[in-house]
Amino acid sequence: MIRLSLYIYRNPILHFVSSPISTSLSLLTLSLQFEVQMSFAKKEYEFLKEIGLGPHNLGCYASGVWRGNGPVITSINPSNNQAIAEVTEASTEDYEEGMKACFEAAKTWMQIPAPKRGEIVRQIGDALRAKLQQLGRLVSLEMGKILAEGIGEVQEIIDMCDFAVGLSRQLNGSIIPSERPNHMMLEMWNPLGIVGVITAFNFPCAVLGWNACLALVCGDCVVWKGAPTTPLITIAMTKIVAGVLEKNNLPGAIFTSFCGGAEIGQAIAKDTRIPLVSFTGSSKVGLMVQKTVNERFGKCLLELSGNNAIIVMDDADIQLAARSVLFAAVGTAGQRCTTCRRLLLHESIYQRVLDQLLEVYKQVKIGDPLLSGTLLGPLHTRAARENFEKGIEIIKSQALAVSKNGGKILTGGSAIESEGNFVQPTIVEISPNADVVKEELFAPVLYVMKFQTLKEAIEINNSVPQGLSSSMFTHKPEVIFKWIG
Amino acid sequence: MIRLSLYIYRNPILHFVSSPISTSLSLLTLSLQFEVQMSFAKKEYEFLKEIGLGPHNLGCYASGVWRGNGPVITSINPSNNQAIAEVTEASTEDYEEGMKACFEAAKTWMQIPAPKRGEIVRQIGDALRAKLQQLGRLVSLEMGKILAEGIGEVQEIIDMCDFAVGLSRQLNGSIIPSERPNHMMLEMWNPLGIVGVITAFNFPCAVLGWNACLALVCGDCVVWKGAPTTPLITIAMTKIVAGVLEKNNLPGAIFTSFCGGAEIGQAIAKDTRIPLVSFTGSSKVGLMVQKTVNERFGKCLLELSGNNAIIVMDDADIQLAARSVLFAAVGTAGQRCTTCRRLLLHESIYQRVLDQLLEVYKQVKIGDPLLSGTLLGPLHTRAARENFEKGIEIIKSQALAVSKNGGKILTGGSAIESEGNFVQPTIVEISPNADVVKEELFAPVLYVMKFQTLKEAIEINNSVPQGLSSSMFTHKPEVIFKWIG
Amino acid sequence: MIRLSLYIYRNPILHFVSSPISTSLSLLTLSLQFEVQMSFAKKEYEFLKEIGLGPHNLGCYASGVWRGNGPVITSINPSNNQAIAEVTEASTEDYEEGMKACFEAAKTWMQIPAPKRGEIVRQIGDALRAKLQQLGRLVSLEMGKILAEGIGEVQEIIDMCDFAVGLSRQLNGSIIPSERPNHMMLEMWNPLGIVGVITAFNFPCAVLGWNACLALVCGDCVVWKGAPTTPLITIAMTKIVAGVLEKNNLPGAIFTSFCGGAEIGQAIAKDTRIPLVSFTGSSKVGLMVQKTVNERFGKCLLELSGNNAIIVMDDADIQLAARSVLFAAVGTAGQRCTTCRRLLLHESIYQRVLDQLLEVYKQVKIGDPLLSGTLLGPLHTRAARENFEKGIEIIKSQALAVSKNGGKILTGGSAIESEGNFVQPTIVEISPNADVVKEELFAPVLYVMKFQTLKEAIEINNSVPQGLSSSMFTHKPEVIFKWIG
Amino acid sequence: MIRLSLYIYRNPILHFVSSPISTSLSLLTLSLQFEVQMSFAKKEYEFLKEIGLGPHNLGCYASGVWRGNGPVITSINPSNNQAIAEVTEASTEDYEEGMKACFEAAKTWMQIPAPKRGEIVRQIGDALRAKLQQLGRLVSLEMGKILAEGIGEVQEIIDMCDFAVGLSRQLNGSIIPSERPNHMMLEMWNPLGIVGVITAFNFPCAVLGWNACLALVCGDCVVWKGAPTTPLITIAMTKIVAGVLEKNNLPGAIFTSFCGGAEIGQAIAKDTRIPLVSFTGSSKVGLMVQKTVNERFGKCLLELSGNNAIIVMDDADIQLAARSVLFAAVGTAGQRCTTCRRLLLHESIYQRVLDQLLEVYKQVKIGDPLLSGTLLGPLHTRAARENFEKGIEIIKSQALAVSKNGGKILTGGSAIESEGNFVQPTIVEISPNADVVKEELFAPVLYVMKFQTLKEAIEINNSVPQGLSSSMFTHKPEVIFKWIG
Repeated sequence: MIRLSLYIYRNPILHFVSSPISTSLSLLTLSLQFEVQMSFAKKEYEFLKEIGLGPHNLGCYASGVWRGNGPVITSINPSNNQAIAEVTEASTEDYEEGMKACFEAAKTWMQIPAPKRGEIVRQIGDALRAKLQQLGRLVSLEMGKILAEGIGEVQEIIDMCDFAVGLSRQLNGSIIPSERPNHMMLEMWNPLGIVGVITAFNFPCAVLGWNACLALVCGDCVVWKGAPTTPLITIAMTKIVAGVLEKNNLPGAIFTSFCGGAEIGQAIAKDTRIPLVSFTGSSKVGLMVQKTVNERFGKCLLELSGNNAIIVMDDADIQLAARSVLFAAVGTAGQRCTTCRRLLLHESIYQRVLDQLLEVYKQVKIGDPLLSGTLLGPLHTRAARENFEKGIEIIKSQALAVSKNGGKILTGGSAIESEGNFVQPTIVEISPNADVVKEELFAPVLYVMKFQTLKEAIEINNSVPQGLSSSMFTHKPEVIFKWIG
Repeated sequence: MIRLSLYIYRNPILHFVSSPISTSLSLLTLSLQFEVQMSFAKKEYEFLKEIGLGPHNLGCYASGVWRGNGPVITSINPSNNQAIAEVTEASTEDYEEGMKACFEAAKTWMQIPAPKRGEIVRQIGDALRAKLQQLGRLVSLEMGKILAEGIGEVQEIIDMCDFAVGLSRQLNGSIIPSERPNHMMLEMWNPLGIVGVITAFNFPCAVLGWNACLALVCGDCVVWKGAPTTPLITIAMTKIVAGVLEKNNLPGAIFTSFCGGAEIGQAIAKDTRIPLVSFTGSSKVGLMVQKTVNERFGKCLLELSGNNAIIVMDDADIQLAARSVLFAAVGTAGQRCTTCRRLLLHESIYQRVLDQLLEVYKQVKIGDPLLSGTLLGPLHTRAARENFEKGIEIIKSQALAVSKNGGKILTGGSAIESEGNFVQPTIVEISPNADVVKEELFAPVLYVMKFQTLKEAIEINNSVPQGLSSSMFTHKPEVIFKWIG
Repeated sequence: MIRLSLYIYRNPILHFVSSPISTSLSLLTLSLQFEVQMSFAKKEYEFLKEIGLGPHNLGCYASGVWRGNGPVITSINPSNNQAIAEVTEASTEDYEEGMKACFEAAKTWMQIPAPKRGEIVRQIGDALRAKLQQLGRLVSLEMGKILAEGIGEVQEIIDMCDFAVGLSRQLNGSIIPSERPNHMMLEMWNPLGIVGVITAFNFPCAVLGWNACLALVCGDCVVWKGAPTTPLITIAMTKIVAGVLEKNNLPGAIFTSFCGGAEIGQAIAKDTRIPLVSFTGSSKVGLMVQKTVNERFGKCLLELSGNNAIIVMDDADIQLAARSVLFAAVGTAGQRCTTCRRLLLHESIYQRVLDQLLEVYKQVKIGDPLLSGTLLGPLHTRAARENFEKGIEIIKSQALAVSKNGGKILTGGSAIESEGNFVQPTIVEISPNADVVKEELFAPVLYVMKFQTLKEAIEINNSVPQGLSSSMFTHKPEVIFKWIG
Repeated sequence: MIRLSLYIYRNPILHFVSSPISTSLSLLTLSLQFEVQMSFAKKEYEFLKEIGLGPHNLGCYASGVWRGNGPVITSINPSNNQAIAEVTEASTEDYEEGMKACFEAAKTWMQIPAPKRGEIVRQIGDALRAKLQQLGRLVSLEMGKILAEGIGEVQEIIDMCDFAVGLSRQLNGSIIPSERPNHMMLEMWNPLGIVGVITAFNFPCAVLGWNACLALVCGDCVVWKGAPTTPLITIAMTKIVAGVLEKNNLPGAIFTSFCGGAEIGQAIAKDTRIPLVSFTGSSKVGLMVQKTVNERFGKCLLELSGNNAIIVMDDADIQLAARSVLFAAVGTAGQRCTTCRRLLLHESIYQRVLDQLLEVYKQVKIGDPLLSGTLLGPLHTRAARENFEKGIEIIKSQALAVSKNGGKILTGGSAIESEGNFVQPTIVEISPNADVVKEELFAPVLYVMKFQTLKEAIEINNSVPQGLSSSMFTHKPEVIFKWIG
């Protein structure tokens, strides 16, 4: 079996696959039909043609051919909830056709020498580099994150490609001298065959990159299902990869891609032709996927929930800390895998940090993520915005319950009246024991709390059930090494 | 070729091979004859019998047999310059006999599976553990370092043995998938055959351990020449190893050992049967060995001179620093590979550190290294003591020349009247530009200097021609990472 | 998290945890009571005292104290189905007490420097070495494998200890230069805390060694549940480890051990204090354990079913192949993780190999595994013997159904009339398509089949649902590399 | 210190730096002046303009500026000994200016994050890819190897660039848990500063690639001196690198390049600013460089002489062997680092292989290396051609002396009458004991000899003083593993 060693560098992180949303969107299809034509007429959408997108798109790249016999859905711009374009998702027949071809292509791909596979991945990196601006704009447009983040996400795949090229010459096996005379053991890494990749809306292409670049150099074909609400990114990315495969006269089925919802996800989880499934999304869905995959003796790579804290010690550089917290809590509108949800402040600098933070929160520019200067774009869907409002209600009710520990909204706390899914960046003063703190609200809501000792801060940090990629601000080496173990 | 990867962890360090001394000692042989008998009658020397030593010893273990046809020398106790025992060194005929057998034994040893070689090294470790106290006492007696250091040095070989056992199951080669279809490259580590090890008086057995443990598990035979002034340690160590080889019915020539001087050293350097020579000693002799070995296309591992500094920053824990400096400058009577020779103090804490240091220097107990409580034993030879006195004269003269930069002996500065080679631990206040600072005085002499900025401190640290294993005291992570690169 | 990297070297293998048996045995307790006393009076059982066993034993080492408040069971000698000794298993209260102490001990153990933990593991290795003969005899007596295998299994843990000592100095983290200037990433391995180890009857101590040696040097405490039918081995092994911990003044709870059945196994699977559970046994139970552990976000190491083939090519050394097949199919009475269950012979040498094999099968000496010369001991339990007989019935019925493909018992096929659980080593000529070939019969039954091409042989090899550690006999490098990938 | 680990994969190999030739060429400068203008007017030389070359070229890239104040030399086409273009070499003043700037640039380059350095190397790879055909033609034109080899050599650097990009994210240091509680050791790789690279005529750019790509990602500046007879390649390669540095606003001095002879080579060897010197060339010059570098405590990477054998066993695929021998002995006109100089044939297939070989040698097409179909181009210089003729005389005389062992020229043996440096591919039947076999004749001369056993063949293989990258043809795995150790 192939090791995909990059994954050991990451803690479990929080993503969402919002499959119910895909259903409700398909109900809206008809009424949005006209709008789609209009959108594409707009000047600011012209760049979409440069990456192969039109008003109506087939959402399934199977056996090297674009097809789509499933439901027609509409991709929505979260800044104004207007349609961008239509996509025909994969049907279960499309899935089966695609997987058959992929299974055949796997036999070809694993026979190609690893460094040659690396050369293909290098070309994919170059093809992405040539369309970096357009792909970055599309991420920003369809997902809602600001442009710098959109471009940064595409750059991340490019970096992964470059890195994987080097790895393609390092997939060494071992010759192990045994304890028996004239006896030698050979150990080689063989491709698994096919790796399934199920990604979430918040990183609609970077997560593909982590998985696909490694899988491809390792000799595995890739089957990708992107999030149902970011189908255009799925299609645009796939077109780049498909172009490189075609140019090299390789079967397109080496990279098979499906736009679709829970049904396609379940098909992947159950498919014995896919020995490894990488899933990014909620803990709840992740556990279900894992169970299904394990039952057929497959393996899973899971990237699930996170509830990260930033701890600011009494000796910290407060300005640096405040700036970093802003970026960590508000970036990607709080929908990031590593969003900071809890801010733990040492009592001696509690008020000073908080004052600085409230000051910088006031200056956050909210609006169209494609506009220069915007720091906070919309939440990804109307449903997410509603979820934010429900969350704020719960916070308010719990804040009361634990009122002796403080507990109040210091800034923000409302959705913004507009066509889009905009909400205010929010800071809540609350006790670490409040129930709501142990849950995830996938929005720019930051819980602030006070601590007295490092030990206490670490205990609070570890008191939530989700995965952690927490961080700390301090100058003291002894605290640093205590922190990292 | 085999990699001996441990060596990458060490900077070049200063040791001495005092070959002239071996000559002068052999001239003294006759007059010391009677004394040797007397020493062995003493109760405190009885433990020597437990590790196979007597008043007269053969100094060559060749072809699994103890022999010696070279000059008879006397091992001297540096605490009183009285004889401990006599040793007959190897003649060049002994050398040639030994190497012939070793060359044959190499064919046997490299055929034994690596994990089985590891098992032999494990047994050597256990045999050393059983005689830890006696071997440690002998190091202390013959070399002059205090007992804790003597035992610590033997423990270091034991640790190396345990570590090497694990390595014996990790000598993996690689299977490298190439860029050609159906093509595979195999890469294996093969034993070199024989590794020559030339060690110095100041670590008369640990340095053997670093080399021999790795060489043996790698499948190489070992040819060892210890320092001419520590022949008893060479013999006692060899007897332990020989015992294990015999018990396992292996050729004794796998570990071939010669007491001897420059002549044997040169024979090793020139010997085309020895593809790798590890040498520890002075830079001057090291370069000569390297040149000789390279000319016959052999390889060298060199451990040469050092001139290490300790930098104390303004935020350092001063008590911790003072204690560490004492240990680093006075330990092994300043004859250690990593002895601190230069103390760089930030101007703001200069006087405070110096005061503390002078205080602790006063309390250093000087005397018989075997006695509990002693912190500073004798220098290794009478010649080293004379060298110390000459060095002090030069320091005094240069201190005058650079008087505007300070420059004076703050404590110590004299040899101690006694039968042994004792000298006072010495602190000298001096400019970093003084010539004497850039040379090595292999004795407990510490040069103290002042600096204002980190940049300046690093420049002073790097301004000497010798190797460095310097260190720094600070709490600031940014300074730490600047320091380590 | 700590990597336990050794596990990547092993394919999933077939073991059994026969929890129903533990229940039926406890029903037998009363009637066996007297017999136990008698057994211990026997001269051949005297060695049990030397490893701390008596006629009545407490089966739970918790918090450094021997206790046992669960059911009293009897350990049975599979050669004669007579009792060896009694064991009081752990109750759920014992479990909870033990885990509380273990959880506390984990805080201590992870603070001890890794090389010091390595030193403890080295001492465990030495303590095992001192009792190698007795422990090997016990494995043979209680499990039923022949003495050479019993001793070999204990030697395997000793080797693991030696290997782990080396690893204790290699648990390095990384300093990763990032793409940002003056930015550095530190990555360290931290102990998990507690590793749960559930082992099976067929390797009652080696599997513990693979897990415990690595876990201990990594800084994890170990909680062990051995198989319910090999409690004496569990106790004897634990006493060795406990002795070392005590001698070093460490909490006994660092190594916590429970004799018990499914109830204790389930408690481990559910216990959130145990982030990693290593399970060896049937695929069915393994999947259940994995599901339970995953639901609480724990991780699993599984060693499950195997159905291994030996492929003999037309150019093979036939004598070597026949000897190897005998060892692979009959060793440990076919109850080994890597037992060969299917023999694939190239048609051109089919009859020759078969003739040789039938010849050597005739000479297999069956009997008391402790007697010198015995090659085949009893099956582990009376139930296993009955299972063998049922399996033979199925084979016979299927052989008829596929008669056109051959299908008949060539040798063996019967249980042997005796007090013990002995069966005949059996060879069955059968089609690769017969259903029974795709199931596991945990007994010395070998299915022989014919093939024409390498491709066909590899397809047959891969046509079973279980894990594989198959092998091949050939001289051709191109076939070898085809085979390994 | 930085490890340049790639070098461990290569055996010492034979290259030539023919510094006397550069002197004699400069004497010819005047008379060739006109010819140079003519050459550049030729249509087939037009491609040189596309890689920045003209009739007169400055041969020193120092401090980011092209200059040249040393002797003017002429680059000669070995196919007709006519001038291609003129180059003004570096003077010692140019060298000193260049090194000063390089030493300053090193401070900048080592501060740039490793992955950013990798990005520069990636761009260099892309810039080379864009000029692959032209650079390959130039190698063929100026060095004399056939076009496929010329292009292949440039491709090798491109591959090194791609590989090094991946390495730029893997230069990890270590965090080593020590045996002391709460103690941690950090180990980081720091750049050396400057790496000197002295390359030979036969691989005028690939060897630069091995060194420079690794050095650059490691944070080291590069100082390159190419062979005096291939200055156009040196200049063209440097222009590619310089272009990338300029485009990224980096100091050109990061890559400093000198056309020049022995004087510049000696300056590099002596220069204390260059801690590591990589040298490729003759063993004689290599030893001198090493000695000079070592005396100033610098380090060397040497690629020296080779005398490789191909062993053909009795079971070998004879056609495959014959084809491979042709390529190995005649490729690059026998001037390759891994040229096969000795063919060892098992007596049972001796005549059959020889017959086949003589047959294929007859079909070798000799001529202009740029023409399609040519298999054997000219030797690199007129002097090399003369050397070939002298070598043949010696062979003939020794063949007589050992006539009882056979010894005669079976094919070839003459230079070819032409304007260029062409010689016939030559096969000589000779005893392995003949003196001439132990020397190197850097030309397409193959010595054929007979052996009876594998042991004998390995002894013959190892009986020469030069480095080895020998190979063997067999089907037997036991022979393969015997062969590789």
